[in-house]
Amino acid sequence: MTEETNRVFEIVEYPEGETPDRECFELQEEPVPELTDDDQVLVRTLYLRMDPGSRSKMVPPEDTPYEDSWAGDESVGSGGIGEVRETTHADFSVGDIVVGRLRWADYDVLTDDDLEEVDLDSAPIRAKLHVLGHTGRVAYVGMTEIADLQEGETVVVSSAAGSVGSIASQIATIYDCRVIGIAGTDDKIDYLVNELGIDEGINYKTTDDIQGDLAEICPDSVDVYYDNVGGEISDAVMNEMNTHGRIVQCGRIALINAEGGDRPTGPRHEGLYIKKRLRREGFVVDDHEELYPEAESMLEEWYTNDQLQHRETIVEGLENTPDAFIGLFEGDGIGKTLVEVSKPPGERND
Amino acid sequence: MTEETNRVFEIVEYPEGETPDRECFELQEEPVPELTDDDQVLVRTLYLRMDPGSRSKMVPPEDTPYEDSWAGDESVGSGGIGEVRETTHADFSVGDIVVGRLRWADYDVLTDDDLEEVDLDSAPIRAKLHVLGHTGRVAYVGMTEIADLQEGETVVVSSAAGSVGSIASQIATIYDCRVIGIAGTDDKIDYLVNELGIDEGINYKTTDDIQGDLAEICPDSVDVYYDNVGGEISDAVMNEMNTHGRIVQCGRIALINAEGGDRPTGPRHEGLYIKKRLRREGFVVDDHEELYPEAESMLEEWYTNDQLQHRETIVEGLENTPDAFIGLFEGDGIGKTLVEVSKPPGERND
Repeated sequence: MTEETNRVFEIVEYPEGETPDRECFELQEEPVPELTDDDQVLVRTLYLRMDPGSRSKMVPPEDTPYEDSWAGDESVGSGGIGEVRETTHADFSVGDIVVGRLRWADYDVLTDDDLEEVDLDSAPIRAKLHVLGHTGRVAYVGMTEIADLQEGETVVVSSAAGSVGSIASQIATIYDCRVIGIAGTDDKIDYLVNELGIDEGINYKTTDDIQGDLAEICPDSVDVYYDNVGGEISDAVMNEMNTHGRIVQCGRIALINAEGGDRPTGPRHEGLYIKKRLRREGFVVDDHEELYPEAESMLEEWYTNDQLQHRETIVEGLENTPDAFIGLFEGDGIGKTLVEVSKPPGERND
Repeated sequence: MTEETNRVFEIVEYPEGETPDRECFELQEEPVPELTDDDQVLVRTLYLRMDPGSRSKMVPPEDTPYEDSWAGDESVGSGGIGEVRETTHADFSVGDIVVGRLRWADYDVLTDDDLEEVDLDSAPIRAKLHVLGHTGRVAYVGMTEIADLQEGETVVVSSAAGSVGSIASQIATIYDCRVIGIAGTDDKIDYLVNELGIDEGINYKTTDDIQGDLAEICPDSVDVYYDNVGGEISDAVMNEMNTHGRIVQCGRIALINAEGGDRPTGPRHEGLYIKKRLRREGFVVDDHEELYPEAESMLEEWYTNDQLQHRETIVEGLENTPDAFIGLFEGDGIGKTLVEVSKPPGERND
C-alpha cells in the first residue's frame, strides 16, 4: 500500500537571519518507517500547517525557547493532519484521520502523546489544523485566559491578518470589543475590515506614526494588546495602553532570531508599567491544556454560527514546504498556509 | 496654642536630573491655616516619611505618572503623622494622632479622604508610617497579590535594604523562600544578611556581573523578582528568571526622570516572556485598598512575633526635609528615612 521511500526534509544548516534560506532545508529519502512498538501508528501526511513560531525552534538545541522542543533534531516538523496506514494502537484503526506533530515528510510514526483523532462531522478536515485546532486554541487562550478580555474593551492585534491574529481579532469582535488590526499590506487591511468585520486597520508599512494613528483611532486608549510581533510596533502600542491594560505576548516575529546574537534594544517601559498598572504576559498554549475542551466548544459554536471567518493558502506538494514556510516571513499570505502533501480521502483519484 | 506662622516648602523649580537639587525647594512662611468647612482637622506635623517615589510627582502636571497626583502643586507632600490641633470633624478630637498625606510644613488641613486615625496600642507611633503603614502595605500587596508568592520559591529583591525592599525581603523569608537582596553598599548587604536574615546579597556596585552572580547563587533560577529599580539591574535578573516567573514592577528609581526627555533604552525581552512564560505587572498600592485590612493584620502579627525588623533614619527639623529627601537618591540610608518636624506627645518638654 505504501510507497517504498519516504521523503523527509532535514535542516542541514541553522538559519541565520529572520527569514530562513531555502538552502537550510534538504529533502532526503529514507525507507518508510516501520512500527517497532505497541501504541504506535504509521501516518501518511495529508496537510502540514506552516507556523512562523517554528522559526524559533530552528536553532541549536541550547537556544531553543521551549523545553520540549524538537530543535536540534535534523528533521523538522509542524502540526499536521494524517491518515493512519498501519497501527499497533488499540485506539486507532487504519483509515482514521488524526492530528499531531508531523515531520515535513510523506510518512511519520506517532505515539500517544502526539495523537488526536479528528471528528469529521463538525467541520472540513483542514479547519482542524487552524481555526478549530491549534491556531484557534492559541487565539482563544490568549484572549480569554491571558488577556482576561472583557466586553466592550478596546483591543489591538498585531499581525492581525495572520492565522492567530485573524482569529484573535474575531474573538474580540464577538466580545463586542472595538478591534484595531495592524498588518502590512492594504489587501490585509481590506480583508480585516471588510471580510472579518474588524473596526479599524493600520498598515504599519505605509504609516509613519503608528502611535499617532492609535491615539486618533482609540481616544479611550487600548485595554488589550494581543502582540504577535514585538519590536517597534509593540512600542507604539505600549505608549497608548490604558490603565490596567494587558499585553499578551503571543509571538515576536519582528525579533525572531535576533536573540542568538546581540539582543535588539528598545525603549524601556518600566515607568509605563507602574503609571498605567500594566500587565504583560507571555504564554505557550500547551501550558493550558485544561482549557482545550472549553476552547474547542466555543470555537465550534462560533464557527457554526459563521462568526469565525478564515482563509487558507494551500501549497501543493511536500517538496514546496520550505518555500511555503519562508513565505510566512515575506508577509505574502493571509490566514493559514497549509502544505497539501497528499489529498485526503474523498478527494483522491487513487 | 499654635505658632503664628506656618513654614511650608514649595517647589520653585522642577528637578531635572534623577536627584533633585536643594534649590528646587524653598521654605516659605504663611499664616497657620484656618478651618473653613465641616469635616476638617488642623494637624501639627510630627513626622514626614521620605519616599523616593515622590520624585516622579515632582514634574509638570502633564508628566505625572499618577492620576490623582499633587504634581504641579507648588507645595510638596509626603505620607506623615500628625496631631490634631483643631477640628470640625465629628470623628476626630483635639489630641488624636492621625496618618495622612501632609505637606512639607508645620501645619496642614486634612479632610476625610486623607485621614486615618492611628491605634497607638499595637506599636510605636512611627511604625505606622512604614512597616505597619503604607510601606508595609506596598510590600505585602506586591508580594502576595501581584507576585502571588508561593512557599519555597526563589525571590530576588532590588533596592533590598530600602524601606519597601527590606519588608518585601522579609515577607519572602517568612514564606520560607530563598531570598537574594540586591543593594549598593557592603553595609547594606551586611544588614540584609546578618540582621534581616536574607539568604544572599549582591552588591551591584562592586560586582561586574550581576547575572553571573545570580546564576551561581540561584541554580534553580528566579521565580519572583520584586523590582524597585528598573534598568540594567533588572535586565540581569530578567535573564535568570524561571519558567512562569513573575516580575513585580514596584519602582523604577534607576530610571526616574529619564522619561521626561528621551526614554532610556535596554535589551528587548519579548522573547523571554514567551520562552519563560513570564508575567510582569506594575502596580500602585492605592488600587488595592480591599487588601489593607488583611495586610495590616498580617504585618502586625509578624511585627509582634519579631519576624519583621526595620530601621529608621530620623532627620530632625522641617528645614532639613529637602536634604533628607535628596539623601534617598544618594543611597546613604538603610530602611526608612523620617523627618521629625515636631516631637510626638510623651516625648515633648513643652
